[in-house]
Amino acid sequence: MRYAILGTGIVGRTVAARLVSLGHDVVIGTRDPATTLARTEPAATGVPVPPYASWRAEHPQVELLTFAEAARQGEVLVNATGGRVSIDALTAADAGHLEGKVLIDIANPLDFSGGWPPVLDPVNTDSLGELIQRTFPGLRVVKTLNTMTSAVMVEPARVSGDHNVFLSGDDEDAKKEVRELLLSFGWPEASILDLGGIQTARGVEMVLPIWLQLMGKFGHADFNFHIQGA
Amino acid sequence: MRYAILGTGIVGRTVAARLVSLGHDVVIGTRDPATTLARTEPAATGVPVPPYASWRAEHPQVELLTFAEAARQGEVLVNATGGRVSIDALTAADAGHLEGKVLIDIANPLDFSGGWPPVLDPVNTDSLGELIQRTFPGLRVVKTLNTMTSAVMVEPARVSGDHNVFLSGDDEDAKKEVRELLLSFGWPEASILDLGGIQTARGVEMVLPIWLQLMGKFGHADFNFHIQGA
Repeated sequence: MRYAILGTGIVGRTVAARLVSLGHDVVIGTRDPATTLARTEPAATGVPVPPYASWRAEHPQVELLTFAEAARQGEVLVNATGGRVSIDALTAADAGHLEGKVLIDIANPLDFSGGWPPVLDPVNTDSLGELIQRTFPGLRVVKTLNTMTSAVMVEPARVSGDHNVFLSGDDEDAKKEVRELLLSFGWPEASILDLGGIQTARGVEMVLPIWLQLMGKFGHADFNFHIQGA
Repeated sequence: MRYAILGTGIVGRTVAARLVSLGHDVVIGTRDPATTLARTEPAATGVPVPPYASWRAEHPQVELLTFAEAARQGEVLVNATGGRVSIDALTAADAGHLEGKVLIDIANPLDFSGGWPPVLDPVNTDSLGELIQRTFPGLRVVKTLNTMTSAVMVEPARVSGDHNVFLSGDDEDAKKEVRELLLSFGWPEASILDLGGIQTARGVEMVLPIWLQLMGKFGHADFNFHIQGA
């Protein structure tokens, strides 16, 4: 399977590397590949992220393309952009390259512009997952994995004991495909909780504030939610 | 200790009964005790709740008073009103009866007026916990227990395995008092996660949407969040 990851941040890189290790073809999309590769400074937001070029050097098999070219080549798409720019990125990807494809939406619409704590936008009466599905009806959006740090997404055993990953989406076949991918990442079948349609993306996006508080409290991100008594 | 519970719904009744069983004096406050006692129909919202009078008959030691009289008598207050009417209830309780007292805020500002799913108001850039603290600066507000069904609040062993209860509040002594109460309810020390100041009430209130989705999925409410890897 050929995956196109949209977004060159730590989440996109982590998912890309894992997909490669599982034998998939992976391309990464960004607004302007030349600019992304030219950056030499770590990204300024949150935890320092090494320049993309240094990650690229270690993963030469992952081509860096424009959003449009990546989306054209990808059979399955992964939204790992910042949630506040996801619609722009998907617009740049070109609706014609999205038609009928599964989009695994990992993004959270966190707005850091007002300082800490970030707030969510959209929120409560809407969600990024719904907004993407509504804006690009040809996509088969599955919201998942957004409730944990990227290292745990692709290697759940980093967190010992049982813990959960959620699925939200209107397309049952798309959710089945994503479930298979989660199993290949090492998620036990019983840990995957299908919450229902894409509207349930509201709930999983709205756990971000407490997740951020917990990360601050623990001083690390290697934790996850477990629903006890399910 | 004399506790005043504000609110006659299932949450208020459950907490009241548990406090009585632990040997505390308990009064319950409502807008108009005569009206509350005169009701013969189950409450219409959500799960049918038996009329208050039938619960009262089984708990004759718990006096039903006005919000103001209950707040006057209570040494510690518990906000178990509907979150959308909490400010009105506390206003009716009279600021003079609140001064310097700990308020355990269990309420969630769920607005069901637009149908299912309910939305939160306030949310994201504010929370009910903060709103109460801001409106009644004489109160020492501790947000806790709002992330689970009332039966689990007072008897955590109903859900097998480890699971968590959160604390948010600006007053460290108040949080210490509430922690002691949680221990007496049966919460293990390690299960109590202090998230920080009252602003962190945003995070715990914003888990309600996924909690409601999970309740719908499981068909029961005997579950709770556990933070794995803490």
